[in-house]
This record gives sequence, C-alpha cells and structure tokens, in this order.
Amino acid sequence: MAGSFSFHLMANDGTARLGEIETPHGRVRTPAFMPVGTQATVKGMYPGQIRATGADIVLANTYHLMLRPGPERIAALGGLHRFMNWPHPILTDSGGFQVMSLAPLRRIDEQGVTFRSHLDGTMYELTPERAVEIQILLGADIAMQLDECVKLPAAPGDLQRGGRLSLGWAERSKRAFEQAPAGRALFGIVQGGDDAALRRHSAGPLVATGFDGYAVGGLAVGEPQEVMLRMIEEVAPVLPDNCPRYLMGVGTPDDLVEAVARGMDMFDCVLPTRNGRHGLAFSRFGPINLKNARHADDQRPLDATSACPAARDFSRAYLHHLTKANEMLGAMLLTAINLSYYQELMAGLRTAIGERRLADFVAETKAQWRAGDE
Amino acid sequence: MAGSFSFHLMANDGTARLGEIETPHGRVRTPAFMPVGTQATVKGMYPGQIRATGADIVLANTYHLMLRPGPERIAALGGLHRFMNWPHPILTDSGGFQVMSLAPLRRIDEQGVTFRSHLDGTMYELTPERAVEIQILLGADIAMQLDECVKLPAAPGDLQRGGRLSLGWAERSKRAFEQAPAGRALFGIVQGGDDAALRRHSAGPLVATGFDGYAVGGLAVGEPQEVMLRMIEEVAPVLPDNCPRYLMGVGTPDDLVEAVARGMDMFDCVLPTRNGRHGLAFSRFGPINLKNARHADDQRPLDATSACPAARDFSRAYLHHLTKANEMLGAMLLTAINLSYYQELMAGLRTAIGERRLADFVAETKAQWRAGDE
Repeated sequence: MAGSFSFHLMANDGTARLGEIETPHGRVRTPAFMPVGTQATVKGMYPGQIRATGADIVLANTYHLMLRPGPERIAALGGLHRFMNWPHPILTDSGGFQVMSLAPLRRIDEQGVTFRSHLDGTMYELTPERAVEIQILLGADIAMQLDECVKLPAAPGDLQRGGRLSLGWAERSKRAFEQAPAGRALFGIVQGGDDAALRRHSAGPLVATGFDGYAVGGLAVGEPQEVMLRMIEEVAPVLPDNCPRYLMGVGTPDDLVEAVARGMDMFDCVLPTRNGRHGLAFSRFGPINLKNARHADDQRPLDATSACPAARDFSRAYLHHLTKANEMLGAMLLTAINLSYYQELMAGLRTAIGERRLADFVAETKAQWRAGDE
Repeated sequence: MAGSFSFHLMANDGTARLGEIETPHGRVRTPAFMPVGTQATVKGMYPGQIRATGADIVLANTYHLMLRPGPERIAALGGLHRFMNWPHPILTDSGGFQVMSLAPLRRIDEQGVTFRSHLDGTMYELTPERAVEIQILLGADIAMQLDECVKLPAAPGDLQRGGRLSLGWAERSKRAFEQAPAGRALFGIVQGGDDAALRRHSAGPLVATGFDGYAVGGLAVGEPQEVMLRMIEEVAPVLPDNCPRYLMGVGTPDDLVEAVARGMDMFDCVLPTRNGRHGLAFSRFGPINLKNARHADDQRPLDATSACPAARDFSRAYLHHLTKANEMLGAMLLTAINLSYYQELMAGLRTAIGERRLADFVAETKAQWRAGDE
C-alpha cells in the first residue's frame, strides 16, 4: 500500500499537463494510458508483461466482473489485485456503459438500471450505490460513479435527460463512497454528448459536488474527432487544475496526442488489444496491417528499435503467418507490441511536456506516422 | 551449430535408457518430450517460455507448413529455426499422418499421396522424395520418412499393405536424404498396427536399410494402452541400441512413463497443449479439470512447488475464472503449466534411470497421481 490517493501537477506546456497520481497501490504517471482488462485479464498478456510495457495502471470492467466471477467472490479471494496478480493501481468503471451496450432487456429509471445478464439471463439491478459497493468489493484504487452514456447522435432531450440522471447518480455515488476504505478515489463523470452548453452545465455542479477526479464520458461514441476535441476544450477549463482528468474510452494514437494537448490526463481504450488480436499493429510508423500479403516475405522485425521484445525478435513475415493462421501467438505478440507502443507514446508525451516541447514532439510523431517505413 | 547428429546411450535401468542426442542446433536429453509446434508455433507459448519449461526440442508439422507459409518461403526467410525464433533442435514429421487425417480427396499409391489442401482446395502431391525435400528446406535437425499410418482397428490386409508401402518409402526417403546438409538426421518408421509379427517384419528391413533413429508409428490411434505397450515390447528388441527410439504421437503422462520403462527415448503429443486450451491441467497430483466449479473459490495455486511461474503465481480460482470466461490467458497459463509438468516428469525419469531407481520413481509418481490433492 503506497499511500492515499492524491494528484500532483508537475508541469504544463500550454494546456497540456504532466502529473503524478498517488494511489494505495502505487504511482501513476500522467498522461497515462490504461490497458483494458475486462474480465480481470488484459487479453493475451501476462501481468508481468503488461507492467514491462510501462503501464502504471489497468482498467477492469465492473459489468463483466459482477456477472462472473462476482464481486463478493473476488473480495473473499483477497480482491482484484490479488485475483489477477496485478499488484499495481487499478481503475474500475461503474458498469453503466457496458450495461447499456451489452445487456439485453435493460430498463433505466431514476433508481438505476435493471438488466438481464448476457451470460445466463439472470436479472440484475445496478444502482449508483451498488456500483460503488461492487467497486469497493473489487478493491479498485479508483472507482467511477454510475452514469448514463447516451450514444451519439442523440436528440437534445435525450442528452439533457442523460445529463440530469448522471448528476443525480453522481451525488448518490459520492454518499455511497463514504463507506470506502481510506485512500481510495471516486471520479465523477461529465456527460452532455456533443452539446457544449450541456457539457458545461454538467461539469459545473459535478465540480461543486466534489470528486477526486473528473472523467469526460460519452465521447468517442461515433462522433467525428473534431467534435470530441471541441467538447474537451469546453469542459477542461471548468475542471479544477488539482484533479486528474480522464477521457473515457479514447482512443487512437492521434486521439491521445490531441487530447493530451488539450489537458486530459488519463485514457483507456480497447483499440491496442482488440486490433492486435485482429492483425493490426500500432507503431512509430503508423498503423501496419499484418494481414496484408506484402509482409509475407519481409524479414524485418516490426520495429528494431522498440523496447518491446515482440517488436524486435520476430519478423514481419512470421507475424503475417501467425495472423493468417489465426494462431494465439500472433494475437499475443501484436497485443504486446501495441500496448508497448501506446506506453512509448505516453512516455514521449510526458517527457515533451516536462521539457515544454510538446508541439515539436507532436509534429515529429505525426510526421513519422505519415512517412511510414516501406 | 552445435555439431552433427549423434546419439550417446549413457545408462540403462532395465530396458529403460538414459541418453543424449547431439544435433546441429544443440543437445537433446533423452527420454525427451517434444512439444508440438504445428504451424511453426507451440500454441499460446513464447519461444523463450517453451525453453524455460525444460524443452530441448520441438516438433513442427510438415503438412501444415507445406500449405502455409510454404517450405520454399521459410527457406528463403532463413529456415524454420529463425522463422519461429527457436534456435534449438527441431524435429519435423513427414506430413503423411496429417494428410491422412486432415486432407479431403486424398489418393494413396506406390508413388505417394495426392490430396487437396484443407485451406484453399489446391491439389498437392507428397512423395517420399518431396517430404524429405520439404524437411530439408525447413532446416529440420531430425526429419522423418514418409509413411502410411493405418488407423486401428484395421483389417490384416490393410496393415500389410501399409507396412509394405512404408518400407518402400523408407528406402526412397533415405536416398533422397543424401541431398541433406551434413549433420542432419533421418528417422525410419516402424509400422504394422497391432500385429506383433508385422511389427517385427517391418522393423527388421528398416534397420537393415539403416537410419539415424527409429520411430514407432501407428500407435495411440485408438487401441488400448496395453496393446500399445505390447507392440513396443515386440519392436524395441529389434532396434539397435545405439540409435534413438521415438514413439510418435504419445501420450498421457502414464503412457510416457510406461513407454520409457520399455526403452523408448522420444515422444511428442498435443495433449498438454490441447488439453491446456480446454481447461485441463496435468500435474503431480494427476489431471485437474479447472472447469469444475469446486475450484471457483480455491485460493491455492495449482502447484506451489512447481518450477513453472504459471503454476505458482495464480490461484485455482483465477484459472477457473479464465477458463470459464474463455480467456486467452487461461489457455496460455494452462499450456505453460502442462508443458512444464511434462518436462518435469521427463527430467524425473532421466534422473531415476541414471540412478537406477526407475521402478521406485514410477511407483512414487503414480501414487501421487492417485492421491490427488483435495
């Protein structure tokens, strides 16, 4: 147990921020990318490997873990850190987003969400209080309030209703979190879709309620990148400087760079893991589709200068073969390569902010993406 | 390149043998278990992990590699060792067994086998000469003659025909192998099904032809273990002491123990890898089915005294969860656990033979399997 939750803002470069989060399970350097460990495992990765990519923190999904193996069971087994053999910081989402996207037969009202498990049909109720209770049982270092994420494009009425619901749930979540062991953190979530005024109206009362950190939710759900960035620009000035800012579910390497430049500190996304399982590598040279036949006879490793052994020790021809043959090792290697690249990018952003040369770093990075390596 | 192929018989305990095979890519301690790397990868394992389990040699499948990515391509990429980043010994099978079991529309005659690829329908011909050529292109340290493996139970006429065909192909394989780089080895294969006389009649001329090692094929194809062991007892005395003896496609831990006691030196089998992917662990305590609900709350690791991190660092409850959730990490951990256990068993057998206490070791091992750990 390293200590209680706290955030230290160490440097700015324009609106970009360099910081450190302290948690009961150690330090998180920000800007930070959190690999997604949906079912208490980052697919295809050993915990030691995840750490070796440079990840300080992983995300786990409350929805999946509440259905299987169940939060009470994980608590009895000593908590999620021990269960998945990851002794470092963990953030859990509230379950709300995935109830909305995965569970059939859901009903949302002021009280919470009722839904049927997509695994076995059992009925569950998820209220703000239960979402917090589950996350306390899991032992999350950082928990998220229950919110309603409205899919875009959405009618103004739906966005307003979602925003109002989420604000009410924020207050109830905060009260419920008073039961949490000392040192743990709860983040509030700003909703409001692509409506700038609604975003600001959501952020204001949330900040007044008071959370350890603030997330911007309901973005990267189908809108153009430009809309997402404008919403960040609207919300960021309303958020307190001395709390971390988490952009949920984002994104591509380019999304990360642009959101960091606009003052966001934390990110999670399934892209590096999911795309890795489907043959797509993220790299200094931009995205590389290993399924493409042009790699079949290519002796070169994916990136000879990478800190990731998977990017150095195997030829592109072999990665192509494994991907075409649908071999587990292909998914394993590309997942490791992608998570390493994401962490390398975040480390580069942190260094650049610290040296106040972010604009140069971003320009160089994007130029290299465009140049490729063929 | 460690040297040319040779075999050194170092000790006997009854009919059991302790030995060492030298190959161009290093040493193989016998009795040896060879993990199966069908498509140039042992499913779910990093090459370094395979080595860390104690494996000296892996097997790769000529049938799969001839279809994809193709032996000429692998040769142009520097050979199979480099392709799969496994710089240690490799044995390749001849492709015959899998043509018979996987390819539709096959035709077998004196000349060879014609078949349709199960991947894209392309027609291929596999002759004894082409099977050897492919294995040379792959760069196998140990190549196998093309043979016909007749499924049991079989009519006497089919067994005789299969035996005759395999003997003719053995001679042609040997001639073709004169083109191989110095130091590589070719093994002949004894066929004859469950017919003791046919087995001896197959082994005699094969030994007269002269190979670097001898395999016993066509066993563990549906017959009772007792029949398999009787066939080994018939064949082993006919085989020269100064050559390794390879029992193809075998087997369970019990099969290995019994076959080692009867003088077999090398084994390959998909059981530890395939069963690992399906939730079954092999262990000192016998087989353990991690899908079973009794593991759901079990804090214990699979085997706290194992040399394998996967067996020590994760609870049975977590392995159960991963297996139920069909997570890659479950398959990865159980594959590593199983391959480690197989290698631990082989190492135990080698030590016991060297100390001439094999009978005691076998009795202790089987007692522990029976006792379990519940």
